[in-house]
Amino acid sequence: MNACEQSLATSSKHAPKVAPAPAPALPELPPRSLGDGRSLDRRLLSRLYVFLGSPPVEFAIREGARAGAAEPVARVVFADRATLLWVLADPQMHFGDAYSDGRASIEGDLVALLESVYRAGGGVAHRASPVRRTVEALRRPHRNTLAGSRHNIHHHYDIGNEFYSLWLGDTMAYTCAYYPTADATLDEAQVAKMDHVCRKLQLRSGESVAEAGCGWGTLALHMARRYGVRVRAFNISHEQIAYARERARREGLSDRVEYVEDDYRNINGHYDAFVSVGMLENVGLRNYTTLGDVARRVLGGRGRGLIHSIGRNQPARLQPWIEKRIFPGGYAPTLGQMSVIFEPWNLSILDVENLRLHYAQTLRHWLGLFEGASERVRAMFDDKFVRMWRSYLSGSIDAFTTGSLQLFQVVFAPGESNDVPWTRAHLYSR
Amino acid sequence: MNACEQSLATSSKHAPKVAPAPAPALPELPPRSLGDGRSLDRRLLSRLYVFLGSPPVEFAIREGARAGAAEPVARVVFADRATLLWVLADPQMHFGDAYSDGRASIEGDLVALLESVYRAGGGVAHRASPVRRTVEALRRPHRNTLAGSRHNIHHHYDIGNEFYSLWLGDTMAYTCAYYPTADATLDEAQVAKMDHVCRKLQLRSGESVAEAGCGWGTLALHMARRYGVRVRAFNISHEQIAYARERARREGLSDRVEYVEDDYRNINGHYDAFVSVGMLENVGLRNYTTLGDVARRVLGGRGRGLIHSIGRNQPARLQPWIEKRIFPGGYAPTLGQMSVIFEPWNLSILDVENLRLHYAQTLRHWLGLFEGASERVRAMFDDKFVRMWRSYLSGSIDAFTTGSLQLFQVVFAPGESNDVPWTRAHLYSR
Repeated sequence: MNACEQSLATSSKHAPKVAPAPAPALPELPPRSLGDGRSLDRRLLSRLYVFLGSPPVEFAIREGARAGAAEPVARVVFADRATLLWVLADPQMHFGDAYSDGRASIEGDLVALLESVYRAGGGVAHRASPVRRTVEALRRPHRNTLAGSRHNIHHHYDIGNEFYSLWLGDTMAYTCAYYPTADATLDEAQVAKMDHVCRKLQLRSGESVAEAGCGWGTLALHMARRYGVRVRAFNISHEQIAYARERARREGLSDRVEYVEDDYRNINGHYDAFVSVGMLENVGLRNYTTLGDVARRVLGGRGRGLIHSIGRNQPARLQPWIEKRIFPGGYAPTLGQMSVIFEPWNLSILDVENLRLHYAQTLRHWLGLFEGASERVRAMFDDKFVRMWRSYLSGSIDAFTTGSLQLFQVVFAPGESNDVPWTRAHLYSR
Repeated sequence: MNACEQSLATSSKHAPKVAPAPAPALPELPPRSLGDGRSLDRRLLSRLYVFLGSPPVEFAIREGARAGAAEPVARVVFADRATLLWVLADPQMHFGDAYSDGRASIEGDLVALLESVYRAGGGVAHRASPVRRTVEALRRPHRNTLAGSRHNIHHHYDIGNEFYSLWLGDTMAYTCAYYPTADATLDEAQVAKMDHVCRKLQLRSGESVAEAGCGWGTLALHMARRYGVRVRAFNISHEQIAYARERARREGLSDRVEYVEDDYRNINGHYDAFVSVGMLENVGLRNYTTLGDVARRVLGGRGRGLIHSIGRNQPARLQPWIEKRIFPGGYAPTLGQMSVIFEPWNLSILDVENLRLHYAQTLRHWLGLFEGASERVRAMFDDKFVRMWRSYLSGSIDAFTTGSLQLFQVVFAPGESNDVPWTRAHLYSR
């Protein structure tokens, strides 16, 4: 695990009401002995501590040597020297695996630990060294070709609708929510996010919408139900599409919402609006121009578009463990990188909003629900799975809290269209 | 003049209340004769017509040949064949000069004419050909070095405070206004713009602000007076600084607003906010990283920043005549190009708003005032100057109406700071 890439937050001034339980006190250990003959282990532990930027964390080998901060917020305990050596060989990849396997455990709060590691790294995303970049380029498993995307999406989104329903709340929306006030509930905030998106798109009754990457279909249903539009929603996750179709049928909206199990690159026809919430992270930089081409083709010379995506302040790959174990093919772009979607097609950027603190809040709510359901998750999968996802959700909180990750909502329109909002006051007029 | 680069607007759905007078009817001319022996002139006029994308415009030589659209919105009349040949040699540069000199005149409405020419070009900014780019690179007169910037700024902003006071309204703000509703007056909209900027910056009483490029000092005074902050405002225009200091003295604000006649690159010290409204256009692409460095240094790890600038959807130089005669060293960047200001310094983009239709409205108001004061301007300068500025203001309306130019307000903060607005509702809460 790299300091700067895998964490979660506790100290926001917008602390959630429904948060994980307060961090437990660290178990007391006997005072450190300087002469206990484990100096090699201590040196190894110190090396890891320094590598991570000397965060307020203690590192230990189970019933053995210790090193690191004198007043730690949390403690990392390795099962044995072999595990420690293995983690030292590639901390960014191997810590996540060691934690998942149970060969490394945490005493104290994982979120606080990972946040302190982020902050020790200065809050700036580390760039991979040239050597690591070469290694990664060679091993890079799944490109975002049509087939590659299908593989990548299957890996993450098809692991079971029941699993996701345990912790995403009633809306089954797996993207950043929008909290009108910091004390809104998760479900309130997910509905507010959908309304925020629909207002930004200025949806009018009778209009048509193309949605690229529709998850479990929540936004499409919301647009049809509340705004009276017809929606054609694309997704290559078989499980999600099946779930979405069943929801539309149950709600009697199947005639106004069509879910298509296909790639966004195959969207055709003309629509009044184009929307994509939480898909760009899986599109891959090389395909941004194609995505813009699709949006331009769909809108013609009029209408509005919105792309909602995790982003960055500075270009950087995803944390390697997250990219390998959680999001194969995933990437969080800077706004500059996103401009490649719009510039070639004379798409005019009308509005950008950065909601990163809202994503930290969303993730806190998800983690709270996930921990509450962890026994059921363990029964569905195994303990390793629980620890892997705990690590991923926890680390993501910190990535947003410390500014390593951003959340951009970008509204755009064809450059020649003047049918655009005069101000943004309508977004806030209730 | 290139179709796609020099115009102004009439057909916005947000038409102004205070606009230039309605376009006069075109003078009737005798029916075109096909056998009048002026076929060479007709062919030359047709060539210009086709070059400009066949807009609904008629082209004529005074008391001679005519060509172009059968039902024109306006007519361009050249004094003689020599003028027509000269314009054909380099329409982008020479039309503006011919119009300014009076060797080309317009029958009908200049704004409507230029808008139709823009639209005939598809509303997309033309890119200069490689040959023209080479020529321009060689002749490029004034780079934005410290000395070059001083020359460029002097050329445009130091031609007389009295001249600008004739048509900028009471605020003397020479940047895009913000119209809460489309029927706001110019002065109301300039004040609303300043409040919009101050709210985006979340200014609090007692804070300090660095302003880069302060014009005649209007925003600095407004911030001090209404928001209780201390301002240090930089500008290299000698005339503007003198005017601003006098205003501050008159208002009794000299102790809270300091106007510094110096380059933004020399701003030092720490401030709670960094603001730059309408300076980036004169900074030059090569200096964007330096501007970001200044903003980061000024803010340290906290505070908020705002940059307000004319922009583009796609990279393109300014229209050559505008760049040479009006704005030497000027450039309107895309958002992607602007990201170079922020990315190297881990500055997080929080909010982008595109106000291009507000700039078209602002320019309509300016043009209306300018035309009302044209006799006084003629007395101060000469008829050529009046025609030159009419052409510039008119063309600029159309550049914004047709989407050739954009207006971006970008709010940013140091990436590690969480002291950022939770939502944007506070901007609209009064």
